[in-house]
Amino acid sequence: MAKITKVSPLAPAAFPTLPVIDGVRLASIAAGVRYQGRTDVMLAVLDPGTSVAGVFTRSATRSAPVLDCQAKIGGASDGPAAILVNSGNSNAFTGHYGQTSVAEVTQAVADVTGVPVGRVFTSSTGVIGEPMKHERIVAKLGDLNAALSPDALEDAARAIMTTDTFAKGASRTVGIDGKMVKIAGIAKGSGMIAPDMATMLVYIFTDARVEQGALQAMLSAMTDKTFNCITVDSDTSTSDTLLLCATGASGVDAEGNAEFAAALEAVMLDLAQQVVRDGEGATKFVEIRVTGAANDVDAKVHGLAIANSPLVKTAIAGEDPNWGRVVMAIGKSGAAADRDLLSISFGDILVAEKGWVSPNYREEDAAAYMKGQDLVIGVDLGLGAGKSTVWTCDLTHGYIEINADYRS
Amino acid sequence: MAKITKVSPLAPAAFPTLPVIDGVRLASIAAGVRYQGRTDVMLAVLDPGTSVAGVFTRSATRSAPVLDCQAKIGGASDGPAAILVNSGNSNAFTGHYGQTSVAEVTQAVADVTGVPVGRVFTSSTGVIGEPMKHERIVAKLGDLNAALSPDALEDAARAIMTTDTFAKGASRTVGIDGKMVKIAGIAKGSGMIAPDMATMLVYIFTDARVEQGALQAMLSAMTDKTFNCITVDSDTSTSDTLLLCATGASGVDAEGNAEFAAALEAVMLDLAQQVVRDGEGATKFVEIRVTGAANDVDAKVHGLAIANSPLVKTAIAGEDPNWGRVVMAIGKSGAAADRDLLSISFGDILVAEKGWVSPNYREEDAAAYMKGQDLVIGVDLGLGAGKSTVWTCDLTHGYIEINADYRS
Repeated sequence: MAKITKVSPLAPAAFPTLPVIDGVRLASIAAGVRYQGRTDVMLAVLDPGTSVAGVFTRSATRSAPVLDCQAKIGGASDGPAAILVNSGNSNAFTGHYGQTSVAEVTQAVADVTGVPVGRVFTSSTGVIGEPMKHERIVAKLGDLNAALSPDALEDAARAIMTTDTFAKGASRTVGIDGKMVKIAGIAKGSGMIAPDMATMLVYIFTDARVEQGALQAMLSAMTDKTFNCITVDSDTSTSDTLLLCATGASGVDAEGNAEFAAALEAVMLDLAQQVVRDGEGATKFVEIRVTGAANDVDAKVHGLAIANSPLVKTAIAGEDPNWGRVVMAIGKSGAAADRDLLSISFGDILVAEKGWVSPNYREEDAAAYMKGQDLVIGVDLGLGAGKSTVWTCDLTHGYIEINADYRS
Repeated sequence: MAKITKVSPLAPAAFPTLPVIDGVRLASIAAGVRYQGRTDVMLAVLDPGTSVAGVFTRSATRSAPVLDCQAKIGGASDGPAAILVNSGNSNAFTGHYGQTSVAEVTQAVADVTGVPVGRVFTSSTGVIGEPMKHERIVAKLGDLNAALSPDALEDAARAIMTTDTFAKGASRTVGIDGKMVKIAGIAKGSGMIAPDMATMLVYIFTDARVEQGALQAMLSAMTDKTFNCITVDSDTSTSDTLLLCATGASGVDAEGNAEFAAALEAVMLDLAQQVVRDGEGATKFVEIRVTGAANDVDAKVHGLAIANSPLVKTAIAGEDPNWGRVVMAIGKSGAAADRDLLSISFGDILVAEKGWVSPNYREEDAAAYMKGQDLVIGVDLGLGAGKSTVWTCDLTHGYIEINADYRS
């Protein structure tokens, strides 16, 4: 595990107070899968009638638990459901033994909780390629089941951490038809964060009622604007999983409700940005706003090219307003750009326009701006109405320290 | 300019002795474009009848000199030709003023050398977005022209350096029809090295006779197997230029000659690998051999995904045989892969096969291997006959040091 234990300078001041989501009970435990002296397994049990939607890594080498979840998502939702997550071992690239581990764990969860095995979802995060000691998890399931409680989301957020330096949670509450509907979620992830998805595990719960197909459609569309718009190092994990569970316990049907959709997207974006704020070695949080692209897809391609460029990211680490590297990243992205229509700004400072440095640009202004912790880089292509915003962090010595030494 | 002046640990022991290429005369000079106390401009004048072929960055924000070269390549080759290169300023993203600089310089070279302006090729490398003091170059052209000499390639290699820690040269000689044909080239580049092309300038000269169209076809095909197979940081420069000049002075027609082609490719690969060996902060030279892919294109996609992965590159820096990150990179590449058919080796050590760690694998063996300076990572997809080899270096604190501080 990483030796770096200092909390990211970009972390929120404290873990937020999360509301209880009716229909969800959780528990965490220290099973010693790999880590010692901390919790490393969480169990969530969801009341009958909960819709479960999911999005997963598109990696061709995805882990056994991801494959199992993908096979189960979209099934009937009348019975109860369960989510079991362990940290310390990703059960990825573990051959047929990996499937055995998943089968053993899911069956044992079904036995203990009474949830049908076809509704038991698991995730594993941590080291790749080592057989998972699933018997350690199975041995703790009775205790976990006995400890289930409606108010244990924060503990769950801590149990699923790996190289994270802080636990991540977010919530929103919306009034619909005179009733309150709650949404609360937790996430883990700090490195290997890139579209599509990354070493990221995200679990979001709501007491709204939304039918499974509609919930899935919502989740997929919003993932493209939130979790698929963040990047730490362009690397993509074999284990990424985002599950969204709607218990319906509020009795409020939220399908097609715009306020609910906005609140859900806000929770997703909040969690996604927290993941970037925990980017390995990060000292700056960077929003890249691309406008004027030929279309939205091109805008995202440009945004991610900038966000993933090691030269841009190291310049930000060095507090250097090196807009030439932004030009370089746009040029290499492969999406449409016209050098002479391009404009670039750092915060409110117009740096370059019409293919050259802006006449009013003073480097000392931009250099002062770059000393801030939260930065905005604006790029206007001058070509059309396409736009996209992506989020990333800088590339620092801390990233090298963590990743040259960590066997993850 | 970079503060790092220590020569890369991966540098060749010495600059090679390069043969004189008949039909080529060169000179270098200190013009003070940006740097002080060193040469920063080189001029090459090529005898009438020289064929000139070129490949260039595909960046959408390419520099004014690149655009000018691209417009000129492929024209008539009866007259003489000239190449003028400056370091210190890339004349990229300098708006219309950039074109003015190119026009001023190329016209001045034509005036001084007698080469038609349509055959005067220029390259500029260095800082982006600052107007180039082209008058400093123009002021030195008379002295440069007077100093032209057949034996000045090494000096030229030094004049075009920016963050390079060593000058790069390579040559081959082949016998064709009882006569010797020579090929010699120089290159610069150390960061922003990635397909297609990078902050790389390469000039290769031969006394073989090859008609322009055939020379261009050869160059383009070989670039895909050499310079487009190397990567330092996945970033692509706005200025990359590779010019290949065949003077014909040997009197030997080398068109279609396999030995000549092999020798030319060897020079190109030698220079390409030297660029990787000068990768910013590099301490390890890494060859990634992908076999068994569905096709050659897929093999290259996998190879570059591995070569560009920050997690793979930091693991190599840490001498950690973290093959799980290789699996991750293959998974995210987008090209076809089947987890359970994949095998991975480090040098001769079979690490993983059939989707899991090899039964005979001992981590201490791989850990010992990773301490070497030149490493080979082998990946067999088990899918087909597609193969590709790419070259990269590790990602170290040195890269961060150079790029967080260097205004390039």
